[in-house]
Formats: sequence, C-alpha cells, structure tokens
Amino acid sequence: MLAARMHRYKEPLVIEDVEIPEISPEEVLVRVAGAGMCRSDVQLIDGYFAEALKPKLPITLGHEIAGVVAALGDQVPASAQLAVGDQVVVAAGWGDGTCRQCRLGNEQICEHGSWPGFGPPGGYAEFVPAPYRQLIRVKHKVKWEELAPLTDAGVTPYRGIKKLRAAGVLGPDRVIGVLGAGGLGTYAVQYAKLLSSGAAVVALALEEDKLAILKQLGADVTINTTGKSVSDLQDELFKLTGTRNLDAAIDCVGAEETIRTGIGLLATAGAYVSVGLVGTRIDIPLFPFTSRELTYHGSFWANYNDLQEVLALAQKGEIRHSIKRVRLQDINENLELLRAGDIVGRAVVLFDIDGSASESGGRGLRPKTENAAQQ
Amino acid sequence: MLAARMHRYKEPLVIEDVEIPEISPEEVLVRVAGAGMCRSDVQLIDGYFAEALKPKLPITLGHEIAGVVAALGDQVPASAQLAVGDQVVVAAGWGDGTCRQCRLGNEQICEHGSWPGFGPPGGYAEFVPAPYRQLIRVKHKVKWEELAPLTDAGVTPYRGIKKLRAAGVLGPDRVIGVLGAGGLGTYAVQYAKLLSSGAAVVALALEEDKLAILKQLGADVTINTTGKSVSDLQDELFKLTGTRNLDAAIDCVGAEETIRTGIGLLATAGAYVSVGLVGTRIDIPLFPFTSRELTYHGSFWANYNDLQEVLALAQKGEIRHSIKRVRLQDINENLELLRAGDIVGRAVVLFDIDGSASESGGRGLRPKTENAAQQ
Amino acid sequence: MLAARMHRYKEPLVIEDVEIPEISPEEVLVRVAGAGMCRSDVQLIDGYFAEALKPKLPITLGHEIAGVVAALGDQVPASAQLAVGDQVVVAAGWGDGTCRQCRLGNEQICEHGSWPGFGPPGGYAEFVPAPYRQLIRVKHKVKWEELAPLTDAGVTPYRGIKKLRAAGVLGPDRVIGVLGAGGLGTYAVQYAKLLSSGAAVVALALEEDKLAILKQLGADVTINTTGKSVSDLQDELFKLTGTRNLDAAIDCVGAEETIRTGIGLLATAGAYVSVGLVGTRIDIPLFPFTSRELTYHGSFWANYNDLQEVLALAQKGEIRHSIKRVRLQDINENLELLRAGDIVGRAVVLFDIDGSASESGGRGLRPKTENAAQQ
Amino acid sequence: MLAARMHRYKEPLVIEDVEIPEISPEEVLVRVAGAGMCRSDVQLIDGYFAEALKPKLPITLGHEIAGVVAALGDQVPASAQLAVGDQVVVAAGWGDGTCRQCRLGNEQICEHGSWPGFGPPGGYAEFVPAPYRQLIRVKHKVKWEELAPLTDAGVTPYRGIKKLRAAGVLGPDRVIGVLGAGGLGTYAVQYAKLLSSGAAVVALALEEDKLAILKQLGADVTINTTGKSVSDLQDELFKLTGTRNLDAAIDCVGAEETIRTGIGLLATAGAYVSVGLVGTRIDIPLFPFTSRELTYHGSFWANYNDLQEVLALAQKGEIRHSIKRVRLQDINENLELLRAGDIVGRAVVLFDIDGSASESGGRGLRPKTENAAQQ
Repeated sequence: MLAARMHRYKEPLVIEDVEIPEISPEEVLVRVAGAGMCRSDVQLIDGYFAEALKPKLPITLGHEIAGVVAALGDQVPASAQLAVGDQVVVAAGWGDGTCRQCRLGNEQICEHGSWPGFGPPGGYAEFVPAPYRQLIRVKHKVKWEELAPLTDAGVTPYRGIKKLRAAGVLGPDRVIGVLGAGGLGTYAVQYAKLLSSGAAVVALALEEDKLAILKQLGADVTINTTGKSVSDLQDELFKLTGTRNLDAAIDCVGAEETIRTGIGLLATAGAYVSVGLVGTRIDIPLFPFTSRELTYHGSFWANYNDLQEVLALAQKGEIRHSIKRVRLQDINENLELLRAGDIVGRAVVLFDIDGSASESGGRGLRPKTENAAQQ
Repeated sequence: MLAARMHRYKEPLVIEDVEIPEISPEEVLVRVAGAGMCRSDVQLIDGYFAEALKPKLPITLGHEIAGVVAALGDQVPASAQLAVGDQVVVAAGWGDGTCRQCRLGNEQICEHGSWPGFGPPGGYAEFVPAPYRQLIRVKHKVKWEELAPLTDAGVTPYRGIKKLRAAGVLGPDRVIGVLGAGGLGTYAVQYAKLLSSGAAVVALALEEDKLAILKQLGADVTINTTGKSVSDLQDELFKLTGTRNLDAAIDCVGAEETIRTGIGLLATAGAYVSVGLVGTRIDIPLFPFTSRELTYHGSFWANYNDLQEVLALAQKGEIRHSIKRVRLQDINENLELLRAGDIVGRAVVLFDIDGSASESGGRGLRPKTENAAQQ
Repeated sequence: MLAARMHRYKEPLVIEDVEIPEISPEEVLVRVAGAGMCRSDVQLIDGYFAEALKPKLPITLGHEIAGVVAALGDQVPASAQLAVGDQVVVAAGWGDGTCRQCRLGNEQICEHGSWPGFGPPGGYAEFVPAPYRQLIRVKHKVKWEELAPLTDAGVTPYRGIKKLRAAGVLGPDRVIGVLGAGGLGTYAVQYAKLLSSGAAVVALALEEDKLAILKQLGADVTINTTGKSVSDLQDELFKLTGTRNLDAAIDCVGAEETIRTGIGLLATAGAYVSVGLVGTRIDIPLFPFTSRELTYHGSFWANYNDLQEVLALAQKGEIRHSIKRVRLQDINENLELLRAGDIVGRAVVLFDIDGSASESGGRGLRPKTENAAQQ
Repeated sequence: MLAARMHRYKEPLVIEDVEIPEISPEEVLVRVAGAGMCRSDVQLIDGYFAEALKPKLPITLGHEIAGVVAALGDQVPASAQLAVGDQVVVAAGWGDGTCRQCRLGNEQICEHGSWPGFGPPGGYAEFVPAPYRQLIRVKHKVKWEELAPLTDAGVTPYRGIKKLRAAGVLGPDRVIGVLGAGGLGTYAVQYAKLLSSGAAVVALALEEDKLAILKQLGADVTINTTGKSVSDLQDELFKLTGTRNLDAAIDCVGAEETIRTGIGLLATAGAYVSVGLVGTRIDIPLFPFTSRELTYHGSFWANYNDLQEVLALAQKGEIRHSIKRVRLQDINENLELLRAGDIVGRAVVLFDIDGSASESGGRGLRPKTENAAQQ
C-alpha cells in the first residue's frame, strides 16, 4: 500500500509502497478514507516531540483517521459490534487499560499510552491497524473529510471547553474567549457557543481572513490582536461586550505571547485552558494569577466519550467545517503551508475507497483528487 | 394605594385601599408595574404553606415584582447605585445575611429568611417595600409583563437546570426531559435548550395545546403522557429519540404521579430536579434509585446571581414569553383559572405607572387594561 | 469442589460437591480463601432481586471474594500482571465494557453488567471464575477475613461517602450522620471520619451494643433512635453537637422509616446517600425536600478505583474490622442470624487454602474452622 | 493609642502615638489583642504591592487581627449579635458587597475590595476599625496569639487545600506535597492531613529544622530539596512513598524555582495551588503541563466561611501552632527576621488588654511582654 513516512527529522515525508500492516488479535485493520493534517505533524517532523516520545523511525504520520473496517483480529469480541465495511473513526489515545486514568476512561493521558502517527503507524497510508476498543462506528453519513478531523482538531477544543464548563465560569452573563483561528480555533468557536449557556464568544487572532471565518462559525465578536497590548485589548473588549475581561478562555495557539495575553485578559476567578502547543513555555506573572484566583487547565486531545459526544453533534449536523481536500502526493507541500500558518480550517488527505471498501487489502489504489471527495 | 390582600384562607382576595407601606432605613419603596401570578399563590390561599410559614393575615400576595424605584431609605448606601426612577426587579428570597447559605449568596434558602408575598407585603399592590440588596436594576428596556415573571417562574427552572448541568449529565448525546407545561415549563424548555450543550429536549405534559407551545419554545420532541405507563413512554421516547431513557429531567409539576413517572424514565446515573410543588410527597421505589445511582435534587426559587443571569438572557432577547395580561380587579377570577390549570404561560397583573413613576406615592392610580401594556 | 448453592427461593442453600468451573480465555480461576456474607444474600434467597435480576437457578451465592490466583485464561494479557499464586480480591461489578458508564469506569452500574453470586457463580465455593480485569492484586499481607468484606461492605459506604464529599457538604464545622450499625455501618463510621475533613460523626441505630462498637470505630457521638421522633432526635443532636441537623448522612439501612427520619434530620442544602436496601420505598415529604434544597444520591456498590482506594487504606492498617469467622458448613445458620440482624460486623466464610494454594484444582479441601484463620 | 506605621517604603515602621480611629456607622472598633506578622508585611514595606494597591502613606500594617469589641457603630444591626467585650477575629477581605464574587461570599477577591493593613488601618495598633460583617465571634477560649494568625497564615493554605480537594485529587492512594515550611507551611501540613482523606503528606523545604517541625505537625514524609533536581526528588519520593509523583501540591513559597520544581513533580492529571508569593513569575514548560492535563489554581487568602471552618477546628483543639510572641516595640527587628526567613512558625504581636478590654479608648497601654501572654 502507499504510505507517507518520515525517515528523518526535518525532511519531507517519503511517499512509498509498503506492506499492509498485520494486525494483532485485538486489532482491526482500517482502510483509511480520510486523514486530517495537523500542525503537530509539522512539530513532529521538526523534532518537538523527539525527546518526550522518542518514536522509532521511519514512522507513518497522521493521527486523525476515518475509514472503513477492512479486517478484524481473531479476538475482537462480538460485543464490540464491528463488521467489515463499517464506517468508523479512530479514537486516538491508546492507554494500557490498567492505570487510574485508563480506568476513568482517559486513555489519552495514560503514562504508558501511545498515539497512532506518533509511534504506531498513522493514517497517511491506505491502511492502518487500531485496537478494536478505539473505534467508534458512525451510523449516519458524514463526509470523510469532515469525520477525520473530528478525532483531533474537532474534539480537542471540545474537551478543553468542557473543562471550562465544569469550572463553573460559563453562563449568560459571561464572556468566553477563543484564542487562535487555525484548525482548532474553527471548531473551538462553535463549541464555545454550544457549551457556554449563552455566554458571549470572542475570537482573538492575528489575521482578518481567519477571523472572518470564525465570525461565520459563530463568534459574536472578533478582535484582531496584532500589535495590541492587554490594556488595548481590554478597551476593545469593553467597547464590544461591555466588560473588560474574559471569564474563560481557550488557547488554541499556545505561543508564549498568546498565553501571557490570554491570562492577562482573564477576569477575577476566571479559567483558562491550553490546548495549543505552538510554543514551549508558560511565562506569566504570579501575583495577579494568585490574588485574582485564576485557574489554568492543561487539556490534551480527548477521550472516547468526548469523541462520542462530538460525533453526536456532527451526526445532527450541528458542526460546520472548513476543509481543504488534499491528495496524498501533495502532502509535503501542504505540510509547508501548515508550518507557515497558511491553511484555513483543516486540510485532510483523502483516499479513493469507493467500490473497493469491502475488499480488504485492495491493491493499486491511488489517492483521490480534491474535486472528487466522497459524499 | 390599592392592594389585593388575603384576609382568610380559602377565600377570594380583597381588593382594597390601604396605606402605602413605610420603609425602613435599608429598604426601597418600589412602585409596582408588573406582578406575576403564580400557582403558589393559589396554594397559599388554600393553606399549603400555612404550617410551614405561618404568615400573619391579612397579607398582600404577589412575589414576582418589577417596577420603578419610588423612594430610598436613609441608609441605602451609594454603592447600591439605586436612584428614584430606576427600573428594577425584586430578587425574592431575603435572608438574614449571617448564615452559611447567606454568605454563599443563597438567601432564598436561609432558615431565617422571608419572601415578599408570603409574609412581608407582596406585589399585588401599587407599592411594595424591599431591602435594597434585593433589587436588580434593569438597564435595557424589557416589558414589565416579561420582567416580573422572571423573578420566579422565569428563574426557578433556570436554577434547577443549572443543578442538572453541574451534575454533569447534559451534553450532545444526552436527552433532557421537562415535565409540565405551566408557567415554569414554558421557561424550562428554553433553558433546557440553552444550558444543555446540545442535548435533545423532550417536553412531557398532559395537554396538547400546552405541548404545542413548548414545541414552539424550543422542545425538540413532545410527549403527551395522558394515560401512559412508564413502559409506554419509554417506547415512545425510543421512537422519537433513539433512547428509552432521560439522562436528566426537571419536574415543573411535583405531583406524586409525575415524580414517579419522571424518576422511572431516568437513565442509569441520571439526575432529577424538582421545582414544582403541586403534590406533597415523593414516593418512589428504592432499589432502582440506588442500584442505578440516580440523583434527586430539590431546587428552590433562585438566588441573586441566578436572577442576574436570567436578566442577561432577557436583555439579549433570548427568552420568549407566553404572557396573559391581567388587571388587578380581575385577580380573583384569574386565580381560579390558575387553580384549574387554565392559564397558558404566565398571567401578570399590570399597573399603569406611565407618567407617574417619578411621583413617589402617587394616588388614585388604577390597574392598567390588558391592551395598554407598557412597552 | 464444595459449593453452597441456592436451588429454590426461600430454602436453605445446598452444600454440595460440584465441578470446578471452567474459565473462558479472558478469565482467571480464583481459589477462594474468604467470602463475606451479606444481607443481600438473604434478600436474594427471599426473592428481593428475582424480578430485577432473574438469575438462573441453581446459583452459587457469595459476592465478597478474596483468594489466590489458581489458573489464568489463554488471553489474559501480560499487562494484567497476574500470576498463579497471587493474592487477589474480586471487584464485583462486571460491565460490558462498551457503554458510557463502563468507559467511565463505573462497571458496577452497567446496564448489561453482572455480579458474581447474583448470576455468575459466587464465592461460597472453593473456586470461582472472574474476568481478569476485575482482579486487584494485594501486595501486602492483610487477613483473608478482612480482605473479602472490603469488596462490598467495606467499599460500598466508601463510595457513598465520596458522593457526600463531592457534594461539598463535609468539613470541620459540619455534622455527618451514619444510619445503621450492621456490616456497612461499621465501615461507614470509619470512612465518615476519614473523608469528612473534621466533621463530627454521629452514628444512629437501634441497638446499644452495635452503637458501642461504632463508637469504638470512630463515631464521635451515638444516638439510639428507638421510639424517637425526628424532633426528639433533633433535641438530642443539639445536646450532643450544638446543632439540630445533619449536613450529610449515609443510610446503611434503607428501611422506609430510616429514610424518612434521615431526610427529616438534614440541614438546609444537606445531602443524603442511600446504600442500604432493607426496604423497598422512598416515601418522604416533597415541600421540605425542595424548599430546603436537599439532595438525595443513590450509590451502588463501588467501582474498581474505589476498591483500590479502600485497599490502600487497608494496607496502611487504617481500617478496623469487626469480623465473625464462619465455616462453609455453617452457612445456613449464619444466614438466619443475618436475617434476624444478629450478626455484629461482618461474617466471612473461610476456606483452608494453606499449602495448597499453588495447586490449581486441588481436591478434597474442606472449609477451615474458625479458630484457624489465615494470618 | 500606639501604632506601628509605615511612612516610607523600605524604611522601618515608626512606633508612635496616634488618635484612636473613628468608626463609621457600620463599623466596629476592635481593641487589638494579637496581630500576626506576615511575610507580606515585609513585601509591602519593600514595595511589592506598591503598583497593584497604591496605598496612601502613612499606613498602619498588620492584617491578622484578633481582639475584643470596644465600640459599635450606630448602624450595626442586632442580627450581627455583637456586643462590647466579645472576643472576635477579623476576616480580612472586605468587598463592595455588590459584585458576583461578593454575592458568592468571596469578598477577598472583590475587585473593589480592601484589606486592613494594606490600605485601611491594620492591627499593629491598639485599636482598629472593621466592618461589622467581617467579624467572627469566637465563643470558646483560644489564646490570642493562636487566634490572630488563623485569619491569614492559618486560613490561606486551608482554602488552597480545599481547592485541591474539590479538584478530586485527594484520597487514600494519593500523595500530596506541601512546599515551604514558613508560617503558611506549618498550617498547610496539618490541613493536608485533615482534608485529604488519607493521602500521604510530603513536606518539601530547604531547612532541616523547619522540616522537623512539619514532621511533628503531621507530615508523613519530609524531603530537603536543597540542591536536588526534579529527577533526584522523584527518586527520593519513590523511596519514601512508592510513587515518583505528587497527585496534588500546595505551594506556600511561590519562588520561581519552587513552582518549577513543584509542577515538575506532579503526576498526570495532578493539581497545583499557589498561595505563596515570594517570587513574581510562573515560568514552566508548556508541553508537559498540557499533555499531562495538569491544573494550576491561584488561591488568595480566604473567605468568611473558610475562616469559620478553621475556627471550628481551632476551637476543637485540632490545630497546633508554632508561635513566637513579640512586643510592639520589637516589631522592626522581627520584620528583619521575617525577611531573612529566620522566624520559625508565626510571630504575633501581643498587646496587654487584661482588665482594660471594656474601657473603649483606654489610654496609656503598653505592649505586653513575651512571657505574659494572655491565656
């Protein structure tokens, strides 16, 4: 099968013909239909995770995976209710199943866990193996290019905003900020609207065209932060919302500067959640953080139940997507665009699986062209 | 001034001319513009609260109050930011300010608290005194007949649903039930929609015309429960929503039968909240309650912050009202309609205060007719 | 092997020689060392669960199981870290692993779940099969008769009190009540002390000798409720603690009367949790429940993480036990004592496994006598 | 009366004779019996708060105040239940009473609030005025030098640990860290023990003699962090507790280094709370914070209910104190010791009020000597 693999850090992926992976008894072979492209792929290539994850090269990237069940391992139980031909997405944090977090369902933060595309082979390939417990069947028809990104870009901010909701800072007389307008931000504004019980949603980012999209996707107010101080932003917030501060904010960027600004805008007793990972440090003043009783949450990817919830929204048609369709052979140039911040919404690699989905191990397939996306 | 007062239990209110109440130093005199009529007025007349509250008769009923500041006590501090002529609503639970619940802001459940219209004089009168701390200024223009009910019918289910939200049982793949289609139910379906992060909202009640209104107000699905068993209802739920149970429910009725049905429909780990008080007992089976880990919350009226939040929604125009305008002289016949369950939405007594709002103690005013409601 | 099985409702168990159960690939065969006796065994015999669980007879009772790993199924993964000879306890709610509650770790309330001794064979036998995921290895030496009851009597009130703690009603200026002084109550008073951050612990029960034990186990105050009204009890509470109400209470009985009394004693905004199941109904007045914003939680058994926490306490020596050792052949007379309420603390059936633990399928074993309990 | 006042930044306080402060109608004049000395006094002198608080000089420092009611303002209501001669402590965050946080009881974080000794006159004086709502009567006899510090050092870590408890990370199989062994740390270890439901309490600090005291006060384990890396500390933790990480930690220091170490030691999904303010920055790596889903809480001082809870503990004798008694005339040299970190436990300025407590405005009083502290 074709796969786009990283052989060395800081080099383009190599698109090559490799063996279809074998599956172990509790795994399922998934024929990939769509694989979302994430800024963390660029970071992986650049070595951001080299220290923390130490992946063995070559590695097939791609962790946002939707496709069709192609084959089942011998020990996949009937209770899993999976059959060849089923439309599925892959929940992407695979825990050891034994630690406290796994027992709570938070496999994505298992200390002995793994993530497809960051060690186990990922979705930039025609087939990918996955543990049966990590698949979610999708009953209704949603486009592949819309399903794939839900497993990361479309669920990561959802979990983050659930943490803000649980913190008790969302409600009709509140203001929630969404920082960043990339892949995560386009989903985040929608969840901010859906989960905040009537709070005003303020999108903050650096580029007008992206802010315009966030506005379409539900932001009540947008603010271009370019060159503005916290005090400038407070003035602008006040003009637009009647309050100088954010009761809650989700940071889809994670740059040192964004974090400092976002925390600086928080109201007393406000809550902040980081899902973006562009930068490497949190560097903020201690006294206002403590004396105003702010809370800062790290939130990582999402668990199986979170993904179920997001899929419920998608299947009701309540999520809007901003997708760029990509062919596997164009993956490296799109990674460059991602690095430069020049992708609007989410880029998704699509594979042509029509007519061949039920043939497990179909050969000779070629990635699909953009204008022929599966309906 | 004119006031509608109860002199004896189980008799019509007496509309009579009485002295304008004096205010103590920390009180404000409010010229009443609208006073919502509540089923609990009927219960008060019928003696439901006689034992628990022991009010001294005669008493002026009416606990949903909106109006204009007519006079300020000597010790109302400047920090209260109140002035004669301000449009205000009255938060209706007045605590002693010293107990733990008061210190948490939950004055409505203070053990030494009181409620206007249940002891202190209420809003079925041209003027009413209220502690300055219990007034909320309403900046933007909302109709009097819409403001008044927000202080009870329009905020009580809001608090109830906040408890369900805090219980963690609301979300996109969940189903929330609203039991009852009276004054509280018409608001409850709207909050169920606004606060549940995408859950399906199911309204359950006995009358088709009221269910039709709940549908208009946002219920995704309505079920007429007349003559149906829990099992019948589960079948119907399944047909309509794909699930046989409710993850959460708010009971705006409180009849013994409703409670048993509502609890019977709850899913494992589901949560129930009672705000309705038609009946007197909770009588449900123990084993399923325990073995399925249900949770049952009592929720009473609302606190100041809750009311602030609801007013924020109203001022954004996000609450729809179903109001019947009533003249003070017609109050007794409308209490009868309320007793019979024949009021759709909320009845509100309106007073004509135009042109005279700034004269504190204006005399000779007469209640306003229905077709001339304040804009 | 020997097993005590129920062939018909309302008849004594039959102690008989039966085949050692076969295990499926993901199961472990446990050689039973101790099996706790629970009042729910009596209820099962009496038909209390016949409707809800519909168990196929004959059935081996006994759901509190501690023992030694005797054999492992073929597909028990290495990550489970289990080996023949390991000392283990059995977590007793076995879910389907796929529903939301299972994904949250609450397998004991899975709608498709099962419980050993209530369908699958239980621990009143020399061997019992159990899914590998439900075993917890116990590293340090704790007596068998102390380990076994931890899996139900010793963990069920723990989970209940965790719900009270999560409700925010426990703290240094609070009072927590423990209703009931049977198997669950003896553990409940200890957890009330350990989990309540300094609250006063009040034990309420009907028998002086049992109350004396609860006092020894950590209750600050005991009250004999025999023949006393709620008002009497409030007077007594006031004398003993300076307050007339309980901020929180755990009901280890579940009789209609106990529930009414317990709820009647709750303070405003108080929380109640039911773990006892002696009766069949909750029958309490609606108005005080609602107007005082009480919360009522059902709590059922416990999940794997709860049991881990209790085992941590046991292994630190922080739990005291009140145990009666029982031989398998005496099981029926002890079930009668349990029915009559004449067991103080917990009765545990002990098996003699010394010297034979490593022989999987050892034959000819006989239950151990009381005075030779494993150390 | 005598007062120790700051006339200029970075200079010793001036002990001088000044007018007894007048009280406004809602204030109470308190005759100071004990005034705790806090490291933040040193910071105030050094200018740490100059920017944030802009206090008008000269200012009387001292925010930990216990004493006797000397006079009541005209409008102090009877419901406050205060009388001349009552033993009281002063809750130290005085909000405007109107904002959301005030309505929730969190006056200490009111944006328009003030704190005695940081603007309004403080307790390094024979008399101090305070709003009547901020006084808590102490019924039982506790020593003045023990009462005073409870209002800050003794309640600030209490609130912080309540946040950790609410975060769900405390329990029998958990480990909680206490960083710092100064005034706050000596209380923090005790609350860590009382509020953590059986978690192991690990004290981490730089000085052996202080660690020894923390051990006496309830720490299960102590670690001297001098010169050790995070990895060294993890090794040591593992040896002492069997785990390499902390599930929760309270930082009573707030130095940049301490924060980095403390956060570095947190387990996946762990929670951190900062109460100490020695440094000015939080500077920690982003990726582990996010990917391990850590949570960081700021916690500031405490509210009225928190203080009530701590006083309940103190009155039950469950708090142990490590106090140094100081005379007002020795205040400057003790501020120097505080700056150098050379006070073990808490220093408290004591005034001799025996026999004169009921004379409001008693003159000619002199501070008490150390060996004659009030019993």
